[in-house]
Amino acid sequence: MSVVAASAASRAHARAAAESLAAIRDRAPRIHCITNAAASVLTANGLLAVGAVPSLTIAPEEVGDFVSGADALLINLGTLDETRRAAIAIAIEAATKAGIPWVLDPVFADRSPQRLDLAARLCALRPAVIHANETEIMALAEKAGREETGAAGAAAKIARDSRACVVLTGPEDRVCDATRAAVLSSGHPLMGKVTAMGCALGAVTAAFCAVERDPFLAALEAVLCFGVAGAMAGDKARGPGSFQAELLDALYALDAAAIEKRGRVK
Amino acid sequence: MSVVAASAASRAHARAAAESLAAIRDRAPRIHCITNAAASVLTANGLLAVGAVPSLTIAPEEVGDFVSGADALLINLGTLDETRRAAIAIAIEAATKAGIPWVLDPVFADRSPQRLDLAARLCALRPAVIHANETEIMALAEKAGREETGAAGAAAKIARDSRACVVLTGPEDRVCDATRAAVLSSGHPLMGKVTAMGCALGAVTAAFCAVERDPFLAALEAVLCFGVAGAMAGDKARGPGSFQAELLDALYALDAAAIEKRGRVK
Amino acid sequence: MSVVAASAASRAHARAAAESLAAIRDRAPRIHCITNAAASVLTANGLLAVGAVPSLTIAPEEVGDFVSGADALLINLGTLDETRRAAIAIAIEAATKAGIPWVLDPVFADRSPQRLDLAARLCALRPAVIHANETEIMALAEKAGREETGAAGAAAKIARDSRACVVLTGPEDRVCDATRAAVLSSGHPLMGKVTAMGCALGAVTAAFCAVERDPFLAALEAVLCFGVAGAMAGDKARGPGSFQAELLDALYALDAAAIEKRGRVK
Repeated sequence: MSVVAASAASRAHARAAAESLAAIRDRAPRIHCITNAAASVLTANGLLAVGAVPSLTIAPEEVGDFVSGADALLINLGTLDETRRAAIAIAIEAATKAGIPWVLDPVFADRSPQRLDLAARLCALRPAVIHANETEIMALAEKAGREETGAAGAAAKIARDSRACVVLTGPEDRVCDATRAAVLSSGHPLMGKVTAMGCALGAVTAAFCAVERDPFLAALEAVLCFGVAGAMAGDKARGPGSFQAELLDALYALDAAAIEKRGRVK
Repeated sequence: MSVVAASAASRAHARAAAESLAAIRDRAPRIHCITNAAASVLTANGLLAVGAVPSLTIAPEEVGDFVSGADALLINLGTLDETRRAAIAIAIEAATKAGIPWVLDPVFADRSPQRLDLAARLCALRPAVIHANETEIMALAEKAGREETGAAGAAAKIARDSRACVVLTGPEDRVCDATRAAVLSSGHPLMGKVTAMGCALGAVTAAFCAVERDPFLAALEAVLCFGVAGAMAGDKARGPGSFQAELLDALYALDAAAIEKRGRVK
Repeated sequence: MSVVAASAASRAHARAAAESLAAIRDRAPRIHCITNAAASVLTANGLLAVGAVPSLTIAPEEVGDFVSGADALLINLGTLDETRRAAIAIAIEAATKAGIPWVLDPVFADRSPQRLDLAARLCALRPAVIHANETEIMALAEKAGREETGAAGAAAKIARDSRACVVLTGPEDRVCDATRAAVLSSGHPLMGKVTAMGCALGAVTAAFCAVERDPFLAALEAVLCFGVAGAMAGDKARGPGSFQAELLDALYALDAAAIEKRGRVK
């Protein structure tokens, strides 16, 4: 596994991220999101801020039509009721049939056995990207009979098994697939003090997947842009309340210069 | 069909809008909203900012009691699950029985056939106002066998068929019923970059319907006030995140002078 | 019933509140919330701002596991669909079994008979705290065959019958149990112009219950901290939109000096 060399890679990825962001703003891809109640507003606003068009219905009767007309799909397990379970199955089938990429965010997979079962089953359905934090990835790898120690090893195993790109979020974010890995270190501590920040990043990752067909690059660029916006927001915010507004303003204003200046990929 | 003459009409409508807004602040009408998950917070906060009192339950068992005690009703189709479908039928029956006005927002009626069917059926149940964007109105008119070309013609047809006032939102907003039409051009481009802005305007329109019994005037005044607040917010916002807070602050602070100064009706 | 004497009590409660807040920030208690759609974001962000960790699932299949792993539970009746009714029963059973405190917020108990019935049944299941406004408490006491007049009398009756601490919210907040009562008068009028402020306070009260085992003290300290944060936010806000962000910033920044300076308990 090759870990891409630091500063030259940073610049190349920053330029590519700026191009993908321009493509999102230009093409306004439709991103359908099945997500939790607490995440829906920030998710929709995060997508609008980068230039994508969100839809959020969870009704099983119509979610297939929405996904068929979309350019990418997000499946977030944050609130998991019967309606959403039914919608998720239909949505993934529609995405697979339409050949559009989808992102899985197995929120709280570590907190209940039913949720972990479902998350593990979904990992096997060929998501383009799995976006999770350390406890979630560890729970998934544990269930899959992992031998590696540490979250990075767990992420690598999940990436190999599922043939997906895995984004492991944390103080530093790690992006890996079966053959590549990168570590990103922008962002801001206040991101952990606003609900659904990770959920919104999952949706923004789906937007990048709609314009960049390599899931590893799409995920890396999404994490890079979101992290730089977080760092910009952190400069201005006076706490988690003002941070949220500043983050959306920063995503909306984000340009190549800011991404190059503040993005850190190693 | 008479299109009201520009500047004198602007002043008269601005004065009437300020009076209706004062009546809302004075009487604090209860507005029950069946709306989508991503819209509920901004909808409730928009209603509170103009002085109305929101309620949002979607439980079929109790929605009838809530609507019976309300002064107006909003039906927004943004998230359409089984519970909401059942609640919508009960809520409209309760509103009709109580003689209170209701506003229909057929969100994404163009995206799924089931949704379009439901939206068309609801249009026939005598909403006071139908609040929709261009693709939604075109889809509804198409389904009704429209011959007119263009969204304005589609809106006019829906208004005639349903005997409702139609608000057609877009870069300019058009308000029409069977005999009257007006075009409003305040607002701000950032309104399209914050989720649920149109949904919140639908709810504010219901609040105006609670104090102004002519749906055409109520809708026109609501669009006028919301647009002026949007223009004021746009002056101060640095992006879509700060815009949302500024809009609520502007709705809360809105007065006759601001409405007269910035409202444009033609 | 002893009403605690004013200024010395203020200082003692302020110091205790600052200690409980420090304990929350230190231990990061998990608070599971079954709450309404419009409240979920502000509730989660309010908990994160004070240092707690929110979870919000309402799926009956998994809510028991979430509650078993939590340090306190909030039951808010603001949106009451079939799923939430089922989840509430399971969650309270899990909380009782695990011996963790739970807070009941009987939102809109006065608006529908079904809701009032459920709220009354839940009051009998030993919540640590019942958090309600005047019309809700009056409706509950009326149903229980109250003879007292006024909301304070109603709150006292509910406290005696349920053996819970009752927080009666309003222009002044009243906290009482079977033997103690206190009145708190910080806060800001804009708190009534932002949806779900009371719901978020209910959740913050659950967080204080997780670190302070006397529900009367926990509730009093939560109301005190939230009110002081509200007063601080009111100094800076220009309306209800900016108020919400300022409140979260203030909760995050809250310290002993601010609580002592601005908290009023009598």
